[in-house]
Parts: sequence; C-alpha cells; structure tokens
Amino acid sequence: MDLNKIIDAMDSAELDSLLLIKPENINYLSGYRPTSMSFIIITEDATLYTSKMDMEDASNNSKISLVEYESIDKLKENLKGKVGIEKSMPVSVYEKFSDGFELKITDIIESARIIKSPDEVKNIRKAITIAEKSLLALEFQGKENEIAAHLEFNLKSNGSTKPAFNTIVASGKNSSMPHATISTSNLESPVVIDWGAVYNNYCSDLSRTLIEGEKQAEIFNIVLEAQLEAIKAIKPGIKASHVDDVARSVIEEYGYGDNFIHSTGHGLGLEVHENPTLAKKSEFILEKDMVVTVEPGIYIKDQFGVRIEDDILVKNRGKVLSSIKKSIN
Amino acid sequence: MDLNKIIDAMDSAELDSLLLIKPENINYLSGYRPTSMSFIIITEDATLYTSKMDMEDASNNSKISLVEYESIDKLKENLKGKVGIEKSMPVSVYEKFSDGFELKITDIIESARIIKSPDEVKNIRKAITIAEKSLLALEFQGKENEIAAHLEFNLKSNGSTKPAFNTIVASGKNSSMPHATISTSNLESPVVIDWGAVYNNYCSDLSRTLIEGEKQAEIFNIVLEAQLEAIKAIKPGIKASHVDDVARSVIEEYGYGDNFIHSTGHGLGLEVHENPTLAKKSEFILEKDMVVTVEPGIYIKDQFGVRIEDDILVKNRGKVLSSIKKSIN
Repeated sequence: MDLNKIIDAMDSAELDSLLLIKPENINYLSGYRPTSMSFIIITEDATLYTSKMDMEDASNNSKISLVEYESIDKLKENLKGKVGIEKSMPVSVYEKFSDGFELKITDIIESARIIKSPDEVKNIRKAITIAEKSLLALEFQGKENEIAAHLEFNLKSNGSTKPAFNTIVASGKNSSMPHATISTSNLESPVVIDWGAVYNNYCSDLSRTLIEGEKQAEIFNIVLEAQLEAIKAIKPGIKASHVDDVARSVIEEYGYGDNFIHSTGHGLGLEVHENPTLAKKSEFILEKDMVVTVEPGIYIKDQFGVRIEDDILVKNRGKVLSSIKKSIN
Repeated sequence: MDLNKIIDAMDSAELDSLLLIKPENINYLSGYRPTSMSFIIITEDATLYTSKMDMEDASNNSKISLVEYESIDKLKENLKGKVGIEKSMPVSVYEKFSDGFELKITDIIESARIIKSPDEVKNIRKAITIAEKSLLALEFQGKENEIAAHLEFNLKSNGSTKPAFNTIVASGKNSSMPHATISTSNLESPVVIDWGAVYNNYCSDLSRTLIEGEKQAEIFNIVLEAQLEAIKAIKPGIKASHVDDVARSVIEEYGYGDNFIHSTGHGLGLEVHENPTLAKKSEFILEKDMVVTVEPGIYIKDQFGVRIEDDILVKNRGKVLSSIKKSIN
C-alpha cells in the first residue's frame, strides 16, 4: 500500500479527508483486520481508530498510527473539508457524519486494491496452494457435509485462517444450483466443489466438478472449453466484459446459453469477490497485476451442474495461479 | 414471523413501505438466506426479489412471494410513499433510492427479531447442543490452529452449516486478547475457546477457559462469580445495563475492573451479535423470550485471560440454555 498514491487520488478527487469503516479497506491500509467497529481517517497521514478490546492486537499489527476509538464526535475533530467515504458505509453511520461534513462516495481504496503488489500476490498464491493441497488429500466418499467438514479441516490444518467462504459441496441434483446449500445426502454424481483458503487475510477461490458418464462429460467439456478460451483472452488492455463474452459465446454455441446463469468471474484479494467483475455489463479494463477468477458453469435444472474455476494473474497474458488438474478423479 | 405485527409497526411509524436488504432480515421474513444481493419490499404484503442464480433455491425455501430481481428501477415501481430502511443499508444503495422516495431508518425488523418464537429457540438450542457435543469430543493437545480445525470439523460433522464466527482458540499470552487471532503455537495454559454453531441459520456462542495453577484459578473464580451473579440478575423488566453492572461490580470488587475490556453480553439469533446488548450504555429492557449471552472476562496484558460465556433465555428468570460444565478439563 502506497499512501502517497492514495493522497494523490484524494487530491484529484478534491477530497480533504477519507473516512473508512470497511474492514478489508482498514486491513489494506493498516495491515490489521479489526474484530470490532473501527475507522481509518486519512488527511495528510493515516490513523486507525479501534476499540479498547482490539488495541493490544492492533498495536502488534498495525503499520499506521493507532488511537483508541472514543466517539463519533472525537472522530469528527480529526476530519476536515470534503470527506470521501466508501459506498458500503452503513446509512446509520453516514447520517452521523453528514451532519457537519460534505460526504462523497469514492472508490479510491477499492481502485488501489485492484492492482496487487508482489506481496499480495504471494499471499493469494499461498491461499491457492493451501486450497489445492487440502482438496488433494480428500477422499470423496460419504455425505456432502462430511466431505465439506474434511475439506475445511484440511484447510485450517494447512494454515488457512478460515474458509474463504462457506465451502460448497453440491452433488447430484444439488449441483444444478450455483450456490447450493450443503446437504446431509450421500454423494451422487456429479460433485461440484467450490472452496477457498484465507492466508494473511487474502483469499483463494477454486471450483472443480467430479463427473461420471457421457452426458456429464459432454457438459464438462463444454465448460472446460469455455474456461480455457476465456483464460486465453485475458491480457492487459482488454475489457473485462470481453472475457465474459468469450466464455458465454462458447457455451451459447453448444446451445446452453440459458444455463450459464452467473457471470464469468471476479477479482480476488482481501475479499473473495472484489473488482474487477468479469460480467456482461462490467466496465473494467484489465490491467497488469489484477487477479481474477474464471469460472463458467452450466446448470441444468432438476438434473445437474458443472463449474470449473481457476485464479488468474494478469501479466502480458493471463497466468493461471492454480495448478491442480481440471479432472481430479 | 408475524407479518401483521410488522405491518402494524409500519403503521405506527407512518411508513408506507419497507425496503430490506440485510440478509438476516430477509432470512427472518422469508425463511430463505440469499447468497447474492436481494431485497424484500413490504407494503400490504411481503415480496422477495432475488437474482436469477438464487431463484431455484429461493423457490424451494421462501415462505413469501418471489420475483426475479431485475433492476433498482423495477423495485422502485413497487415502493410507495414513505419508505423504511435498515440502518445497515449501504450508502450507495441508499443514494439510488433517495432519489424519488423519502427514506427513514427504522428498526422494525430488528425489534421483531429480538423476541424469539418457540421455533427460533428450538434452532438456537440445537445450535448450542451441536457446539457442546463438538467441544466435548475434542482432545486438547497440539497447536491452537489444530484444535480449532478439529473443533470446526466436529461442528460441521454434527450438523452446523458453518462456525457461527471464526473459532477462537487462544492459549497462554494470546488469551489476554478477547478476539485473538489464532496461532500455530503449541497449546499453553490457559486456553480460551470461544466457539459457536449455526443451525437453520441460528447461532450459538459459548466460551470456556481451561486453566492451570493457582493464579489462573483465582481469576477463573472471579469471572465465574461475575457470570453467575449476572445470570441471576436476569429477569423480564430489568435494564440490560443492570446485568452488565452486576458482572462489572463483582470484577471491580476484586480489583480487576480495568481488565474487563468488553461488554457483558449480547443478543443471539440469526446474527451472532444482535440486540439487546448487555453493556453499560445499553438502553434495552429485558423481556421474556429474548436470548442473550453472558460472558464476562478478565484480561491481564502480556500474561493471560479468562472468559466464560453461556447463552440465556429470558423467562421469569434467566434460563441457561447451555449445559456444558464450566470446568471441562
């Protein structure tokens, strides 16, 4: 994180202060992820305000100056002029500050976060390695929730602080829902596993589908072709929506356009879903050192679904960071 | 959930519609927890708007009528008059609706959620049972993250969809931080475990501390006395702040007032932290069928900490829902 760049961006946006409350943004700027309501104020410098309870932990981990949070009024004394805020700020907080300050939504921090530093890429790589190792040690027998329990156990044992999201193990008919709720049913075919690790607060996000039989193989191969073509399309300067278009076109060609019911991918970092989105209406242009998922899928209602997802670092081409085989059974 | 009561509350607050976006509130009203941005609009009736991706799952689980989400503009067509919104609504969403409607923060849904129905209590009880069973099956050896991995594995195997929060296993010096980050150090003494299960989206939240030696036992007994006195103080009609005061007074008497650096407890339900807070400045009055945690702690910097936490249902007295012994080793 380069504070000068952020202060330059504040200048360009004619902002005199930034008031941040989103934990991931606080994490990005301070190196510390608060466990209770905390704020960062940036004027000429950045200061973290956190609760008494988090002070000891924060003082061990924050890279920026630290003050114990007392009250909104105290915070206001440290704000000045036109104040940039995050779009996720809860309206109740917004109302407390809007009395006295001109507040303006800005994406300065999210924009900074979109380009990953070498250290950030290292953390994401490590989160991917943990996720892959954890899957490869699994035996695919038992119930959906048992497989998920084993996978999350492996993740934590291998150094993941927590699952990057609620692990999906969706088998048989369940696999026809992209975000299926985990069941206590015995595994049927196919099995969609969508899982990720968190390392130093950075996420990985992968999906694999274990298939059986001709019909599933046919769908698998279409999804795989869509994914590989989309990955091939990745390079700096192209529209994020183009990557979505490439994946979608392959699936449409085979007549399954209506069965690809989500976007092709999303940025990955301190959040498991962050900018840039790879979607039809995305207005992002890909740049070097972005990290994105590419995860097309086909979902046939009441039958089954297939999804394949990898994590890609944008360099001169798209560099696939995940190395686990596409067919793992 | 009783929709008529909510519509009555809207009447009293002179609101013509409610616009809800918070997943827990959507869950409360519809029985379905969306995995993507969704809304509920209540006017004479309640309607859930969710994404294409979630439609199949929602149609299987929603108790209220369901429409595929298309756009903010389409939602606006279904709003009318003065619109109640949640205090957690992101300001970016707020701005999209404030153009055209008079928006007013309301806690109608949170207020309804504070009193638990018999079914809700059943879910919380089940989440507590799962949590207790999962802890009792643990062996306390190895590293902090290994214990946590085993505990979360047990939770999931026993039917918890996910941990209610990132499980805390904080041992030795780490235990002096209430929300310590988990380490890969071997267990030392004491060991604070703070963990919870999720069953049907309802949470449990418990803490136990494994102690060793006289000094730790002394602190343990003070915390235990504070907790038992606080639980004894619980009954309908008293101030939530009084419960905090009772626990705090015991700890202060022994000279450890400055080492109790958080509030005494909080409500528990679809969220692991919800109303009513049991804190110095809490303005809640306890009522029958609230569920709260009581969790005093003493944290001695650079040495160790002790916390004991149970979940209490407010009836004529406080009814302790958790049954696991206070000393488990």
